[in-house]
Amino acid sequence: MLGWISLHSSIACPILMKSMDALVSLCKRRGFLFQSSEIYGGVQGFWDYGPLGVELKRNLKDAWWHDMISGHNELVSPAGAPSTFEMVGLDCTIIMHPQVWKCSGHYDLFHDHMVDCRESKKRYRFDQVRGRFVEYQGTKIFVSTLAEIEQEEDEVRRRGMKFFKLRPKNADELTVEKESLTLDKLDSTDNVLAPDAKTLGTLTEPREFNLMFKTTLGALGGEEDTTFLRPETAQGIFVNFKNVVDSSRVRIPFGIGQVGKSFRNEITPRNFTFRSREFEQMEIEFFCHPNQSQEWYRYWRDRRMAWYTKLGLSSESLIMREHHTEELAHYSVGTADIEYAFPFLPEGEYGELEGIAHRGDFDLRSHMEGKLDPATNPMTVELNEHGKPKHRGSGKDLAYRDDITNEKFVPHVIEPSAGADRAALAFLCEAYTEDEAPDENGKMQTRTVMKLDPRLAPIKAAVFPLVKKDGMPEVAQEIYGALKEHYNVFYDAKGAVGRRYRRQDEAGTPYCITVDGDSLTDKTVTIRDRDTLEQTRVKIDDVISEIQSRMKAST
Amino acid sequence: MLGWISLHSSIACPILMKSMDALVSLCKRRGFLFQSSEIYGGVQGFWDYGPLGVELKRNLKDAWWHDMISGHNELVSPAGAPSTFEMVGLDCTIIMHPQVWKCSGHYDLFHDHMVDCRESKKRYRFDQVRGRFVEYQGTKIFVSTLAEIEQEEDEVRRRGMKFFKLRPKNADELTVEKESLTLDKLDSTDNVLAPDAKTLGTLTEPREFNLMFKTTLGALGGEEDTTFLRPETAQGIFVNFKNVVDSSRVRIPFGIGQVGKSFRNEITPRNFTFRSREFEQMEIEFFCHPNQSQEWYRYWRDRRMAWYTKLGLSSESLIMREHHTEELAHYSVGTADIEYAFPFLPEGEYGELEGIAHRGDFDLRSHMEGKLDPATNPMTVELNEHGKPKHRGSGKDLAYRDDITNEKFVPHVIEPSAGADRAALAFLCEAYTEDEAPDENGKMQTRTVMKLDPRLAPIKAAVFPLVKKDGMPEVAQEIYGALKEHYNVFYDAKGAVGRRYRRQDEAGTPYCITVDGDSLTDKTVTIRDRDTLEQTRVKIDDVISEIQSRMKAST
Repeated sequence: MLGWISLHSSIACPILMKSMDALVSLCKRRGFLFQSSEIYGGVQGFWDYGPLGVELKRNLKDAWWHDMISGHNELVSPAGAPSTFEMVGLDCTIIMHPQVWKCSGHYDLFHDHMVDCRESKKRYRFDQVRGRFVEYQGTKIFVSTLAEIEQEEDEVRRRGMKFFKLRPKNADELTVEKESLTLDKLDSTDNVLAPDAKTLGTLTEPREFNLMFKTTLGALGGEEDTTFLRPETAQGIFVNFKNVVDSSRVRIPFGIGQVGKSFRNEITPRNFTFRSREFEQMEIEFFCHPNQSQEWYRYWRDRRMAWYTKLGLSSESLIMREHHTEELAHYSVGTADIEYAFPFLPEGEYGELEGIAHRGDFDLRSHMEGKLDPATNPMTVELNEHGKPKHRGSGKDLAYRDDITNEKFVPHVIEPSAGADRAALAFLCEAYTEDEAPDENGKMQTRTVMKLDPRLAPIKAAVFPLVKKDGMPEVAQEIYGALKEHYNVFYDAKGAVGRRYRRQDEAGTPYCITVDGDSLTDKTVTIRDRDTLEQTRVKIDDVISEIQSRMKAST
Repeated sequence: MLGWISLHSSIACPILMKSMDALVSLCKRRGFLFQSSEIYGGVQGFWDYGPLGVELKRNLKDAWWHDMISGHNELVSPAGAPSTFEMVGLDCTIIMHPQVWKCSGHYDLFHDHMVDCRESKKRYRFDQVRGRFVEYQGTKIFVSTLAEIEQEEDEVRRRGMKFFKLRPKNADELTVEKESLTLDKLDSTDNVLAPDAKTLGTLTEPREFNLMFKTTLGALGGEEDTTFLRPETAQGIFVNFKNVVDSSRVRIPFGIGQVGKSFRNEITPRNFTFRSREFEQMEIEFFCHPNQSQEWYRYWRDRRMAWYTKLGLSSESLIMREHHTEELAHYSVGTADIEYAFPFLPEGEYGELEGIAHRGDFDLRSHMEGKLDPATNPMTVELNEHGKPKHRGSGKDLAYRDDITNEKFVPHVIEPSAGADRAALAFLCEAYTEDEAPDENGKMQTRTVMKLDPRLAPIKAAVFPLVKKDGMPEVAQEIYGALKEHYNVFYDAKGAVGRRYRRQDEAGTPYCITVDGDSLTDKTVTIRDRDTLEQTRVKIDDVISEIQSRMKAST
């Protein structure tokens, strides 16, 4: 099970690892997440959502769609926004025209450098192979290893000794340089002993490998039909910008949102679903006048941060990290990441949930600049006089004309780009709690509870007849049926009621409704709250409105 | 724009073509559907959903998910069902382990045979190139063409004369055989004049082309890392069968549903979105005891048919087509297609919306049979003594043990497999109506209206202030804001109210709410029904409950 191995190997803190292990195990046991193709040994970097997981992820994506797109009130300026604005949705294909990726810059810039070893036939990432210089009787070689940094010096010494075929008596004449380097810092690989090689200079020159998944269009396809699975949903929005403006009568400022799968051929997928090769994005491209773009950038940064806390991430575990000027892409005026303190990271470290980027007019301009000569193979990398790829677009005019001011301009873009799987993982991590709750006999016992926000919870309520007799199942079934018209509800008549509570606690179900002996006479049931453990007696006729008002209070 | 061309070329009936053209044009103009990567000339077989389209498709998929999965009442036997049953959801990755496709049979069986012409360098589908035998002075050749069947004889005669270099005086010695054949019916291609060739015997032997999109896992990937984009969502369910049983405590009979993208490298994508290369499926795999499988097959056939009519497809345009015994896959006991009379088809012809297949235990058995020898390349086609591919699975035991009867068995599977894009297209075709409605002055005018079921309609209600003064916008905005918490609602204050109605008619919005001068005094508004054109006066305080009750009546 490759995925699990890579998860463990990347965990630095043993105490936190324990709780991450417990979460990973709960996710599999209760049907939140399974490794893709598990019965065939799994595929690294791919995860399936089980019966509970699919409902959680649907709720998360629906909450985003409602809060950002379909529920947006275009007539009222939200707090902090410079003006009112419109939001519309879009759903583009995963496979697009290859020139989209040429013009977006992904084809030329979205890659890693790799070296091959002619001896071992293995391939390594150029900037990840570390080593040190070793000297013996005036001969200096660079010994590389794949060992962990703390064991690296021993490993380099051992391999150096082996290479120089030293006998014990003159081993102390071997010197190992203190500084540990990666291959990309060397002038040449001629004197390099590759990690799995026995002779020097077996590494090839570094080659570029594109991180996009390549495929071929049409069963008839030749090389000219090569295309890619999208590495982001954003480009589908940019290439449809004019279609949306023309068909929807939207006026700037406005945003286009999209939810969908993207694919990146990551070299090292790891940390459960955090770095997956197939993942789902929730992206907004917000188009505004260049003069207002800084205000909109600040607005979206703050609004997206607030969205995560409203849905239950604690503000202590979240940070907003503004990129330093040198980190920014050349076209970007500003980028901020919303990061979460995932438990698999060392204390004080955070992992990215969402990036909010001020992209200027880079993307629309890339897609509108002069059309490529039809004779040019769109897959050939063309460089300009500065050695940078030339971005040549569709030749279409993607500028916007304001129908009131009559001003024509290429809008600036603010891009809040969220990962649906990373958000789901953060909500799972945040929800996972071990506390104490009384068992059947009132004795306090450890319980595992997923404290998911009711909007995100896969099951909103569970209905239990206390015992399977005396008409209790009939009453419980009626309540279940009525609730089921509104929510995903679970019916459970098996085992002690305390154990049924525990099962729902693990599933994150916020409300458990129990039908007992009194229910038949006084027409009431108990509603038990997952987090406070409080049990309230409610009239059977009021159960639906009670659940509705509790659900509403949570939004 | 390749997609449009292929659409037109396949339309046989000129009268119907007109209305299909009008629909296609409305879909683009109003933002239901755009051609993927249109600014780069488009990609054949790929379509993007615009702002209205994405809401329609979301509503359609949500209706399916609610009606089949999350809203299913597991305690009540639906009409026609042999017993009660459970339904759960799943969401698997598009890229899976390559052995999944080996064991499912897709790698070996999901392909077309193609021939190449050495002279013209063109490639043809072996079973699609038609022609006839032509004889002249004892020499017989097979002349193939790509002409339409009605013009084929003329074309064959013309090409035959050209080949034999006949002058007009002996042209009548040329005989053309009556019977038109496809290439796959010939013993050899030696005497074939290929469609674009001038010499005989230029065609290669037929070769197999797999319809799955191929890609490579990992930037480090070699040939052994080749895998495929899933051509169906079903296999993700089968390989997770045991995970779902173990994590969800479901008991047979039960169903697992999944909604997601699939990919097929169709040779001839056409008919708008009907035959796309990237498409979305809504699939159920229903697991039951072998003894009950026939009853469940009939149940799902009828239930799925009823789903389409409930959401608005007219029963006159729908047929249930049972496959003949010779059409069935070898493992299948029965398959029925739900087909719709799409307007781009000749009268009396129907196109598939959904297939309901009795698959026996074929799929689970394929994935559980003996594990492949690890030394075997899973991509090598292995044939058994009958020349059929050997299906060798994961070696995992996927049998089910009933915890009450203690019987152990491999469940039988009923598979209702629906296409979300085809369903969306059918609902759009059905909804498209040209009728008459009175304009501002009471004069009847032709109007275009999309009579979509309210559940499917992208926008549920539009709110109009009659004029932009006298406090009408304020009242209208308040109603809009209150409705927006529940539904996707549109606000429109621009132009004559009659034109605003027309715009909403084209978008398929079922209810238009107008605030007029009286609204300010008697606190009422008019609600205008899209289909009946009836206008009802409703108290402002009752607008939400009125829209809710009309929406509910439609479910």
